[in-house]
Amino acid sequence: MSTELRIIPITGIGEIDPDADLGTLIYEALQQQQLTLQTGDVLVVTQKIISKAEGRLVNLDDVEPSEFAKTFAERYEKDARHVEVVLRETKRIARMDRGIIISETYHGFICANAGVDESNVEGGQFLTLLPVDSDVSASTIRSRLQQLNDEERPIEIAVIVSDTWGRAWRNGQVNMAIGVAGMEAMVDYRGQRDAYGYELRASMIAVADELSAAAELVMGKVDQVPVALIRGYHYSPAAGTVHTLTRDSATDMFR
Amino acid sequence: MSTELRIIPITGIGEIDPDADLGTLIYEALQQQQLTLQTGDVLVVTQKIISKAEGRLVNLDDVEPSEFAKTFAERYEKDARHVEVVLRETKRIARMDRGIIISETYHGFICANAGVDESNVEGGQFLTLLPVDSDVSASTIRSRLQQLNDEERPIEIAVIVSDTWGRAWRNGQVNMAIGVAGMEAMVDYRGQRDAYGYELRASMIAVADELSAAAELVMGKVDQVPVALIRGYHYSPAAGTVHTLTRDSATDMFR
Repeated sequence: MSTELRIIPITGIGEIDPDADLGTLIYEALQQQQLTLQTGDVLVVTQKIISKAEGRLVNLDDVEPSEFAKTFAERYEKDARHVEVVLRETKRIARMDRGIIISETYHGFICANAGVDESNVEGGQFLTLLPVDSDVSASTIRSRLQQLNDEERPIEIAVIVSDTWGRAWRNGQVNMAIGVAGMEAMVDYRGQRDAYGYELRASMIAVADELSAAAELVMGKVDQVPVALIRGYHYSPAAGTVHTLTRDSATDMFR
Repeated sequence: MSTELRIIPITGIGEIDPDADLGTLIYEALQQQQLTLQTGDVLVVTQKIISKAEGRLVNLDDVEPSEFAKTFAERYEKDARHVEVVLRETKRIARMDRGIIISETYHGFICANAGVDESNVEGGQFLTLLPVDSDVSASTIRSRLQQLNDEERPIEIAVIVSDTWGRAWRNGQVNMAIGVAGMEAMVDYRGQRDAYGYELRASMIAVADELSAAAELVMGKVDQVPVALIRGYHYSPAAGTVHTLTRDSATDMFR
């Protein structure tokens, strides 16, 4: 049975230092909003604050660009050091055209510039890289929240790390999951039947991506809302991993 | 300022006949749930009930497959009549491999099987096609709801038509917008600056897709929830069209 969903912006988390304890910061922010975690809650956390807390920052002054990076950067009026960092985070280039690099990252994600970002980091001479393993980042935050929640048994919650990415064929970006802990990232309806008894064809739903997209709607881009609490969604508890959602290259027709 | 979002499943709409007045059916379903439309509400409606109401059904018995459809169907153990209908809805085939057809439709969408679907239609010998113009479908529902709402001035609401599609590079499907009325499908943050004064890079957000994805979370697949009401999202009122989100082939690196 489907019930109403609430998506609550979590504010007041403030600036994130390297080695910040994000679980504790999120817990304190929830308390400030008079929110108590409940079984079934999903927290969506943006990649930016995780990359900062995990020190996934590169100072552009420390980067020596390769000739390849220099040539590409010059042709498209980009910063060669930035291009160099993108290349270092890239396992394989899926497309490289019109100044755009679509990377396959070492995580197995396909995204623009290997997820390297320049906005929103103090000083402006720094780039943020994606977390090394966002499943671990999500799991760490989840464990800390369970610990701080101070129940007799750990509360059943899920944590998703999200980033804002473009898509093939569609303009604009949406939030997608890059790390998952505490829930199945995918819901599998295969074998289930609709109201007429027919087996469902559209049957594997990437719910972690949908939860990430839903969370973005309360985050905005300039509002400093790095976390959203989703309440009322009935997920399947599991260890969880985003790699349920990363398509294997053997079955990918667009790589 | 970001506020809490509510996503409310709308149930009790029941079976849809050709020529059904969806706006009226949705209005009655809202009333049954004691819901009164408010300015700023977004209604997300699944493609399936719109295709049914608009008579976008094909009886497989009426389809004579081409040789091309027959050969492909035989190779991959598919129904040649189904393949034929997919081909008729396809302007251009983007990929055709392992029994999968990724179509560019006449609307400019890229999706599997041109959006032709067999599940959830009575009798089982019928296929549903995408609406001819889902922007018009959305606009028609919106106007009817405004009319029935019986205010002195038409209430400001938005309507999105959504369908469940796969993506390149990612496993699983998510709901995306295929028709929009009453709001900008995209939010443009270009030129805005973050808390440090830096111009935002990730700056065009496909909010109609995110609202569609969010709505899917209360719809499920077997629960008969064809409509969701999203309350608390601050969109930009506009005539609106999904074609803001369909990437032009000239700028598409994956077509």
